[in-house]
Amino acid sequence: MTAAEPRLDRYLADWTALSAFTDATQPGWTRRAFTPPYLQARAWLSERMTGAGLQAGIDAGGNLVGRRPGRLPAARPLVLGSHTDTVAGGGRFDGILGVLAAIEVARALQEAGAGLRHPLEVIDFLGEEPNDFGLSMVGSRALAGTLDQAGLQRQDLSGRSLADAIAEAGGNPGRLADVRRVPGSVACYLELHIEQGRRLEQAGCPLGVVTAITGVTRYRVELQGRADHAGGTPVAERCDALAGAAQVISAMERLWIDGAGVGTVGRLTVSPNSINVVPENVMMWTDMRSLDGALLDTRRGSFAAQVGEIAGQRGLRAAVDLLSREEPVAADPAVCAALAEVAGRTGRPFLQLPSYAGHDANQMAKIAPVGMLFAPSRDGRSHCPEEWTEPDDIGVCLAALAAAVIRLDEELAP
Amino acid sequence: MTAAEPRLDRYLADWTALSAFTDATQPGWTRRAFTPPYLQARAWLSERMTGAGLQAGIDAGGNLVGRRPGRLPAARPLVLGSHTDTVAGGGRFDGILGVLAAIEVARALQEAGAGLRHPLEVIDFLGEEPNDFGLSMVGSRALAGTLDQAGLQRQDLSGRSLADAIAEAGGNPGRLADVRRVPGSVACYLELHIEQGRRLEQAGCPLGVVTAITGVTRYRVELQGRADHAGGTPVAERCDALAGAAQVISAMERLWIDGAGVGTVGRLTVSPNSINVVPENVMMWTDMRSLDGALLDTRRGSFAAQVGEIAGQRGLRAAVDLLSREEPVAADPAVCAALAEVAGRTGRPFLQLPSYAGHDANQMAKIAPVGMLFAPSRDGRSHCPEEWTEPDDIGVCLAALAAAVIRLDEELAP
Repeated sequence: MTAAEPRLDRYLADWTALSAFTDATQPGWTRRAFTPPYLQARAWLSERMTGAGLQAGIDAGGNLVGRRPGRLPAARPLVLGSHTDTVAGGGRFDGILGVLAAIEVARALQEAGAGLRHPLEVIDFLGEEPNDFGLSMVGSRALAGTLDQAGLQRQDLSGRSLADAIAEAGGNPGRLADVRRVPGSVACYLELHIEQGRRLEQAGCPLGVVTAITGVTRYRVELQGRADHAGGTPVAERCDALAGAAQVISAMERLWIDGAGVGTVGRLTVSPNSINVVPENVMMWTDMRSLDGALLDTRRGSFAAQVGEIAGQRGLRAAVDLLSREEPVAADPAVCAALAEVAGRTGRPFLQLPSYAGHDANQMAKIAPVGMLFAPSRDGRSHCPEEWTEPDDIGVCLAALAAAVIRLDEELAP
Repeated sequence: MTAAEPRLDRYLADWTALSAFTDATQPGWTRRAFTPPYLQARAWLSERMTGAGLQAGIDAGGNLVGRRPGRLPAARPLVLGSHTDTVAGGGRFDGILGVLAAIEVARALQEAGAGLRHPLEVIDFLGEEPNDFGLSMVGSRALAGTLDQAGLQRQDLSGRSLADAIAEAGGNPGRLADVRRVPGSVACYLELHIEQGRRLEQAGCPLGVVTAITGVTRYRVELQGRADHAGGTPVAERCDALAGAAQVISAMERLWIDGAGVGTVGRLTVSPNSINVVPENVMMWTDMRSLDGALLDTRRGSFAAQVGEIAGQRGLRAAVDLLSREEPVAADPAVCAALAEVAGRTGRPFLQLPSYAGHDANQMAKIAPVGMLFAPSRDGRSHCPEEWTEPDDIGVCLAALAAAVIRLDEELAP
């Protein structure tokens, strides 16, 4: 069996260096996809991949891919990946952990001097987080073949298309066919990620094995009312888009208060947004998740119907646009069993648990057996500057990820 | 009796010219106080005042004041005024009508060649609308002596103080004592303004005489929760500032649905405002108005208490900051009677009605007898690009305003 001992100190040095590539105009450690600090960070990451014995480059989908060959030249690759973009006001762990841990695992394998049967790929997927084009998981969609022309034509507020943004990030949107992987062409996809919840922390576990990934439905809801002077127009005679939005927000909360999934109105803008003008227009970006695909279907319909009722009662015009719809994904049973086996060998307690967040693994599951490891998140926090995972826990995760690669390299058909 | 025949065509020519001074980056006819188009518009307006026989200049409070002397040198001035700043996405009538009509009345008086007993002042008050300093009616506050050091120290988002902004607009915030008028030193203050409601239109009246001006209380409400990942955190475990804000918005609506006044949440911002992050912070700017000062007091307290209850139930921190508090103002009975008399002489129906919007007249009432005329607003719209008053109605208002000046010049003690 190949020996490979990933080192926490090297991981932490990379992590410290990467944390410096942030947007100084934003709170936290913001590195939104397509921005200058993001592109600079990836240039630095590419060098780190090279130093870990990986041949690095940007693929047509804008993904930063590092690859080392396997002993069996025709074998399908083992792919490790995640992302290094953050939300606005984000932290230093979400996505980043998975990319830097994969690089450290590659470095440990290189150091051990023993090759795998399969090629190894480490991928920093382009733009996993929501962006101004309204499409997340951009790079993993390209690999899975789910980035279509409609997606490429999406525009940000400045009118730039996603296709142009991918090209500026070093990709080639005209050659997406080159990057698309056919189902079965990848031996397996592994992703280490922070949990973004409290279950591991509450159970005192330094790692978790993911059994399934939640389905996610995103709607943009627009309510259009009438701008009137806030003094001259009696409340009962208004078409107040924000008062309608308040009911929509409360309806979303009631719909998911039972915990059978989650529903969120996380982003909202008001127009004209003036203290003495009745709000004319409200845009809301909503997000509903459940591991139960049938339930998610039902509640998706129920939410849209409630928006229609609220708008109808108030004389508002409502538009409910589907932004994205991801079905729940089960982790591959064989990969999941292998991950549980290596997690058990760490000698530390671990949980098998579902993921209530979407990941690049959602896309990769369309073409490969996928498995995920989770690291604990302090106080469950994520998508905020307070994101934190204890270094000791990261050390356990690094060891488990390296062991999983070696174990799956032996177990999976080339 | 002096003859003075204001001309609608000249008014409309001025109105067309002034409408060109707008912010091209904003919708509608936006000319926010302190912005380049606002300052350019006032330079143009100053020339129009000069052309109407007024000696024009910016006073220490940043007001553009045009003055013609009276026949009785020591007499107190008749003051006509309003404002030419707009809200973001505003129209071409709110405030503007009163300033341009006053200039046209001055021009008609000049043309008629007959002087008044009292000096005549036409004032374009600085910054009547809400601005980034959170203080409206800036210029009329300076005249009334209610612009204090705390107000001058207010900062916009860039950290500029209101004092600096007044200086950049040509004022001298260190010499506000020069501009302050002592109570009794102004013979009367008249303001023609659009109604910003539907009552005149519904009654088919081309003008109205204002009996009282609403009291206005403005609060800024901040709710502070906790940013969590929208996927990993069950709805029941969240501290969602936007879900709390939704209840506050609904509470405001319920509080005023009876029509005893109005309550509005017109401006709201969410942070971090990301589709997959539970909202951590919401800021709301609220506005409550009533002609009944005691009722406004009661509901002000009730609203603040409800915010506290909602926050308490959700584990949110709440801050309710008073931005401004204006008591209801009664129009001066003698001025009101004179306005009703000249309105009756137009031969057209008119209404006596309260104003549910605040005006520079609120401040001027602290130092002078005030009266207001209202012009109809099509469909009650204001603070939006659709603001519209029929030119024929404006013609009636111009004639009434000129007649009121002549009538009050005769009636009021010098």
